[in-house]
Amino acid sequence: MRIALPQRGWLLDLDGTVYVGDALVPGAAETIAALRAAGRRVAFLSNKPLFTRADYAAKLSRLGIPAGPEDVVNSSIVLARHLAGLDPGAPVFVIGEPPLLDELRAHGFEVRNDPRVRWVVIAFDRTFDYGKLTIALQAVRQGARLIATNPDRTCPTEAGEIPDCAGMIAAVEAVTGATVEVIVGKPSPIILEVALAALGLEPADCVMVGDRLETDIVMGKRRGLATVLVLSGVTRRDDPRIAEIGPDLVLPSLAALVDPR
Amino acid sequence: MRIALPQRGWLLDLDGTVYVGDALVPGAAETIAALRAAGRRVAFLSNKPLFTRADYAAKLSRLGIPAGPEDVVNSSIVLARHLAGLDPGAPVFVIGEPPLLDELRAHGFEVRNDPRVRWVVIAFDRTFDYGKLTIALQAVRQGARLIATNPDRTCPTEAGEIPDCAGMIAAVEAVTGATVEVIVGKPSPIILEVALAALGLEPADCVMVGDRLETDIVMGKRRGLATVLVLSGVTRRDDPRIAEIGPDLVLPSLAALVDPR
Repeated sequence: MRIALPQRGWLLDLDGTVYVGDALVPGAAETIAALRAAGRRVAFLSNKPLFTRADYAAKLSRLGIPAGPEDVVNSSIVLARHLAGLDPGAPVFVIGEPPLLDELRAHGFEVRNDPRVRWVVIAFDRTFDYGKLTIALQAVRQGARLIATNPDRTCPTEAGEIPDCAGMIAAVEAVTGATVEVIVGKPSPIILEVALAALGLEPADCVMVGDRLETDIVMGKRRGLATVLVLSGVTRRDDPRIAEIGPDLVLPSLAALVDPR
Repeated sequence: MRIALPQRGWLLDLDGTVYVGDALVPGAAETIAALRAAGRRVAFLSNKPLFTRADYAAKLSRLGIPAGPEDVVNSSIVLARHLAGLDPGAPVFVIGEPPLLDELRAHGFEVRNDPRVRWVVIAFDRTFDYGKLTIALQAVRQGARLIATNPDRTCPTEAGEIPDCAGMIAAVEAVTGATVEVIVGKPSPIILEVALAALGLEPADCVMVGDRLETDIVMGKRRGLATVLVLSGVTRRDDPRIAEIGPDLVLPSLAALVDPR
């Protein structure tokens, strides 16, 4: 069995790379099993702040890829850790869903539902509304700073695209006139550092595999990882940016990483 | 009785100029009565799409300034008229409140609650939520175009600032990647043309009076009206933009327009 690249560490994007919605990408489970059998280390990396690491690990295990919470790095956990470094225990107002609020509470933050906070945390939030936007405005007027989970415009689902965190960020920036100081998710180096630490390997010994050029591939290249673009998600083979951005490999899907001969 | 400027037509902003919230600016009713008694024509101009012209006329009358719907020009009626010129009877999806939907229906538009539309109308909407943002995204993906009522970031209220239409516009633009083609409200010349037509006068024979430099004063100056900045609303006397933008007169409030001697 031959693996396309020699690096020991493998960072795999989830949506569009390992699965699409609730359907596993064909061959993904076998490829990940082959990587592990060959002694390679694998971690999963997602910009989605909608679920906890334990939720992602359970989903992967259910789909036939055994995984524990420590194998998953997503933008919620990275935001919670990063903000804990900047302002531990701070009062925060969150534009986000309950699992993100839980993650922040678990990291010692005081999650409030009013503007008397030091930070407004902005995330992909399917319950975003005018009331939350109003509290964010009042909080910024009282001096709160802005931090966000991920810069994605939309999120692909089996039912089509839905608005992602960029919509919430833009609304808050437009009404407040303030700018989000930090977006921790891909392509930020912040999420990549957490993932490299989870693998315990140096960038030069790792590969970033993903379906998005502007996040997965750009982030990996900037930090010196090998990069693999898979065409099982949002990017089409004729996208002119592939040549510009230049991933090391372009493959139809994860299945093509391993040659069973 | 002496009136500060000789022009026959007077366009008066409402919020911050004639009233603040539900309180009349002291002297505003007397000044407007004096203008009318001297044979000047008066019309009222608002960027707010939350109410109908009849609502504004009723409010003015209640506050002691007799007015009919034909004396009021706001961004809802201007949007409905402008879009009727571009695409009469089109199916539209509206991010907005019920009076705007009624205005659009009254102008012959098919107001739908799904993405099968030719236009997404974006307005100041205190019931904005993720569901509306999702329909807007789907509509744009199916080819819908974007038009908006007003560019204001926030709206002052007696309880403080609240998010205005800029928040809704930014969210839709960020998730769709599309750009709003037309914003009809101040400082657009579109709303000014409707107001000038209501007065039946040429720009050179009219005065624009308002409390916002970047909308009221900029719009009036661009079109060749005389301009009066009143300090009864959002602008402070020490604002450095006053000298840059250069309104013809800067007055503490409408009351100072008329000298009773």
